[in-house]
Amino acid sequence: MNRPIHGGNLAWAADLAGCSPHSILDFSASINPLGPPQTAISAVQAHLDTLTTYPDPSCKAICQTLSRIHQLPMNWFLPGNGSAELLTWACRDLAQLPATAMVTPAFADYRRALNAFQAQIRSFSLDFKAGQNDSLPGLMDQVLTSIGQSTEISESGLLLNNPHNPTGQILSLNQTERLLNQFAWVVVDEAFMDFVPSQDQFSLIPKIQDFPNLIILRSLTKFYSLPGLRLGYAVGHPDHLQRWQQWRDPWSVNSLAMAAGVAVLEDHAFQTQTMHWLPHARSQLMTGLIERGFRPYQSAANFLLVATDVSVPSLQEVLLKHHQILIRDCLSFPELGEHFFRVAVRTPEENQRLLNALAHCMPSISV
Amino acid sequence: MNRPIHGGNLAWAADLAGCSPHSILDFSASINPLGPPQTAISAVQAHLDTLTTYPDPSCKAICQTLSRIHQLPMNWFLPGNGSAELLTWACRDLAQLPATAMVTPAFADYRRALNAFQAQIRSFSLDFKAGQNDSLPGLMDQVLTSIGQSTEISESGLLLNNPHNPTGQILSLNQTERLLNQFAWVVVDEAFMDFVPSQDQFSLIPKIQDFPNLIILRSLTKFYSLPGLRLGYAVGHPDHLQRWQQWRDPWSVNSLAMAAGVAVLEDHAFQTQTMHWLPHARSQLMTGLIERGFRPYQSAANFLLVATDVSVPSLQEVLLKHHQILIRDCLSFPELGEHFFRVAVRTPEENQRLLNALAHCMPSISV
Repeated sequence: MNRPIHGGNLAWAADLAGCSPHSILDFSASINPLGPPQTAISAVQAHLDTLTTYPDPSCKAICQTLSRIHQLPMNWFLPGNGSAELLTWACRDLAQLPATAMVTPAFADYRRALNAFQAQIRSFSLDFKAGQNDSLPGLMDQVLTSIGQSTEISESGLLLNNPHNPTGQILSLNQTERLLNQFAWVVVDEAFMDFVPSQDQFSLIPKIQDFPNLIILRSLTKFYSLPGLRLGYAVGHPDHLQRWQQWRDPWSVNSLAMAAGVAVLEDHAFQTQTMHWLPHARSQLMTGLIERGFRPYQSAANFLLVATDVSVPSLQEVLLKHHQILIRDCLSFPELGEHFFRVAVRTPEENQRLLNALAHCMPSISV
Repeated sequence: MNRPIHGGNLAWAADLAGCSPHSILDFSASINPLGPPQTAISAVQAHLDTLTTYPDPSCKAICQTLSRIHQLPMNWFLPGNGSAELLTWACRDLAQLPATAMVTPAFADYRRALNAFQAQIRSFSLDFKAGQNDSLPGLMDQVLTSIGQSTEISESGLLLNNPHNPTGQILSLNQTERLLNQFAWVVVDEAFMDFVPSQDQFSLIPKIQDFPNLIILRSLTKFYSLPGLRLGYAVGHPDHLQRWQQWRDPWSVNSLAMAAGVAVLEDHAFQTQTMHWLPHARSQLMTGLIERGFRPYQSAANFLLVATDVSVPSLQEVLLKHHQILIRDCLSFPELGEHFFRVAVRTPEENQRLLNALAHCMPSISV
């Protein structure tokens, strides 16, 4: 099996580890380990008898909920079969423009979706020097300044990610709003924004009505641990969203995802529990990694990018074969290569299991 | 709410009937009333704990099952988020050609998908004269002959539906194979083929390896009553399917749909039960409709197209308001208009409920 370009490919990992996919402790996909909330599972179970009818093409129930939460009219939302489906249509729009700027390293699916419609990609690379102690906020600020200063951008598109994956960097409203005024079309993927406390100080959703050239993508499957069910949504001017709705088939969001979505968006207990868990668990993992000689970067999200002197493919293999633990190598990010990895923040016990495994196998890994 | 262009929109019907969507007896969507099979529900329940992981992008489990059933290599199959998702990509391919021929009336989603990529549509209309007793096989043969004789087809695409919706007509291998040799690219939607006894005498799947210009679309949600879950598959040359896989996101098919798909494809008891139910229930409905003065057409599928002298919008409204029964008007098919409707074949008791309601309300409907 080929090395996957995304995290969470347990079939590949299990093959390599020689165990069942269920036995793998997965740090490669950045999924909230506390979920899924019981409200989601109950909603799915309660809706099993609705599978004999088509999903509501207007996704009314979930749009009503989103409308209430974000204080925007219902038709400013378009639910999707995961935010990845919506990314496809967003990139079809971007491909109409002469070029689309993006920060690299970037989520691998951006390139897939842009290439699907032959978009011209203009990469702006974070200038990593992994051997040194890079200041990521500084690097990010540099790259955003370069983007803002690049010539001929007024007719171009911009695909941003906030918080940024795989670095975990968060962009301020100052940084993003400035770019909104410069680009013809801006797509901001806020897939991990739910993990950010006071997200309204960072998310562009409260500003969406001021920017008809802006589309925001959100995921519900990372925070609520439901990637198998597929659910995300786009926020943007109704004209754009209606165009996408005409491009795709009417039943793109399955009924169980819709039911779970409505339930979890109102599950304040789960939201609170997650916001309590993350800062402590992230600090624990960060400290433990530093103690073991790794160089994790500060992150606003539920994952850490980690620089190391050892060969990550070797480390990944040993962790899999001896500890059935999967970390995300960064080989699919050309800017990073074999001296970086990414790990999800998991429960304190699971984080400790990773830290113990790292302590155990580090002596055997060559630099 | 606008009048829907597809069957099965229970939200719209419930609004009109002034009841809950669950109270509607739905003859508008052509879904097997015996399902979903218990094997599907059990598979979904057994996989609820896998929702925290991403779906397998290669859909290996279901491709293995399809490979065994259809005796073709695994990579000749591409599962989709309903066959409607796959139709979108099929039409993107068709749109590359100067024109795409299709028989009308046609499933409304064909036009959506072709228009999404600005395909040039060349309609070949079945020449209905509803007042008379049309021979549908004759009309279909005429239209296929016209398609075959149309000039400049060698560079064109063809989008066929077998059995044909909304007429229920089945095309013979003779009829379809002839066209395969004439068109550059042929997409055959076999969404209702599972309802046809000895389907191997009609389906093009056994011939697929002889025709690199052919893609077949199949649905699993109609026969197995799972439209809310979304599952279909394409059969075709791996080069085409891999191209589609690059266009769409990697996690298009949700984990529960995959699990249910694997289970139902091997559920021979449910398949047998369905094949026993359909011929009798369809005859019962057909005879009852004729006795009440309607003119249903012979159908190879699990639905009947019915011609009538009365105004179908009025009939539909009375059935909804007084009997909470939903039939499919044909207003969205310009070739048919207000003197046709389509009904699914349901259980004998449900069919009888429709027939009783029709007998009850017919005197009050104007022609």
